[in-house]
Amino acid sequence: MRLTRYYDDNGNTRIGEVTDGIVTPLEGITTIDATTGIDRLASAARDEAGRFPFEERVLAPIADPRRVVCVGLNYLTHVDESKRELPTYPVLFTKFASALIGAHDDILLPPEAGQVDYEGELSVVIGRAGRRIPAKDATSHILGYSVANDVTMRDYQYKTHQWLQGKAWDNSTPLGPVVVTPDEVEIESRTLTTTLNGEVVQSSSLDRLIFSISELISTVSEFTNLEPGDVILTGTPGGVGYRRDPQLFLKDGDKVSVEVTGIGKIENRVVAETV
Amino acid sequence: MRLTRYYDDNGNTRIGEVTDGIVTPLEGITTIDATTGIDRLASAARDEAGRFPFEERVLAPIADPRRVVCVGLNYLTHVDESKRELPTYPVLFTKFASALIGAHDDILLPPEAGQVDYEGELSVVIGRAGRRIPAKDATSHILGYSVANDVTMRDYQYKTHQWLQGKAWDNSTPLGPVVVTPDEVEIESRTLTTTLNGEVVQSSSLDRLIFSISELISTVSEFTNLEPGDVILTGTPGGVGYRRDPQLFLKDGDKVSVEVTGIGKIENRVVAETV
Repeated sequence: MRLTRYYDDNGNTRIGEVTDGIVTPLEGITTIDATTGIDRLASAARDEAGRFPFEERVLAPIADPRRVVCVGLNYLTHVDESKRELPTYPVLFTKFASALIGAHDDILLPPEAGQVDYEGELSVVIGRAGRRIPAKDATSHILGYSVANDVTMRDYQYKTHQWLQGKAWDNSTPLGPVVVTPDEVEIESRTLTTTLNGEVVQSSSLDRLIFSISELISTVSEFTNLEPGDVILTGTPGGVGYRRDPQLFLKDGDKVSVEVTGIGKIENRVVAETV
Repeated sequence: MRLTRYYDDNGNTRIGEVTDGIVTPLEGITTIDATTGIDRLASAARDEAGRFPFEERVLAPIADPRRVVCVGLNYLTHVDESKRELPTYPVLFTKFASALIGAHDDILLPPEAGQVDYEGELSVVIGRAGRRIPAKDATSHILGYSVANDVTMRDYQYKTHQWLQGKAWDNSTPLGPVVVTPDEVEIESRTLTTTLNGEVVQSSSLDRLIFSISELISTVSEFTNLEPGDVILTGTPGGVGYRRDPQLFLKDGDKVSVEVTGIGKIENRVVAETV
């Protein structure tokens, strides 16, 4: 399944399945959350009469996750450029749900932040609840994969040794365009590419994760019960703007995209926020 | 107002006002969240016929906050014992809502964690939404104060430079017993005391916060829109078990309490979790 969330004609959010560029609404499913696990999504009746073209004018596939867990330093290329030690346990931090925006929404550039950077990432959406999930069983807890840009305010990130205030700005983090279930895509053979104004700035195979998706799910679920709709951002490869010479930051009017082959592409304008 | 959350006779959660040891249910209010700001709580009809004694058999006053923001190193005594620099910006991290338990619930001691520590803290509950709140206006966004124990798995906290996995264990963080509105308590003149098996292990005046409550609200709301029901844990004073010689950690059967004069006391048993 390739799942999308969108507004129906009455302005209510709905979940639909995308096949060959057509969205088929799932009857009775308005959101992906703790009440809509894999089984309910798979077995929901399809509203064939309500089909419409998928134009990627879509919402973030998850409206209000209870957990958005992010992973830092999960590619060697990014560990190296950051001059960090190779981690022996995943570097974990969070965002609030209010950070998330859709695949084509504007990334807001807050006037307070001087160093706004891109971080193209693969994200994983949980589809079946679990606590202390062994890595070998983790795949069965995955609803699917999506694409994210973990936009980071570097000057705020490094204000202290904890990163929250650099990572959790409202309306900063595009997610989408769809959630693709694991049966549709063998993730290790896929490539992630970030472009800024058409130029490639990050490119990596997804077989380069230091901690695999299964290990991440196992690690996080050791301390908290993962629930359907929870989102894990799996880390960014090398090439971030902060580590370039000269440094490269997002500015008003920029266009930044992140694509994972076999999943899809998010593409966002960067727009100065007026406050 | 002193607000409590409890189960009614039908097993539904309700909010009540506590006066002189009696709870008066607020009609139509089942939870404190983004839909129940200060004004709605203050103006809700009181169900005088439904009054019952307040016995502190209560739930965490907030069921499912969208944000639980914690502050590290916000007392000089704790900065000193941690051998850290004086912060120039609050050290911020988060917990998930699933960490919260009631004022008298058991703190679960996970078998994986070897160094489980107490951190008595004052917490602040937001009552009016706001973004980029100037410190001078912050008080008007406070619903009230509560007491918390930011129980921390030290061996997990220091697995990496980011603290999430030491702070976000499910069912680890008591909050309560009530939320007390600012008109009822002048917070700077109050004292926080943590006891372990009856012995005082932390004690501080609340006028010792490095970053004041108003500064914390202003800082956090710069990057995210604070909403009613959001919780800020304002940091712990010196005396944590990890920094003692010899070190002191929570073990099965311990009783740990945190009291703030004028607000109330949370007291929890520590119970080995069976998995």
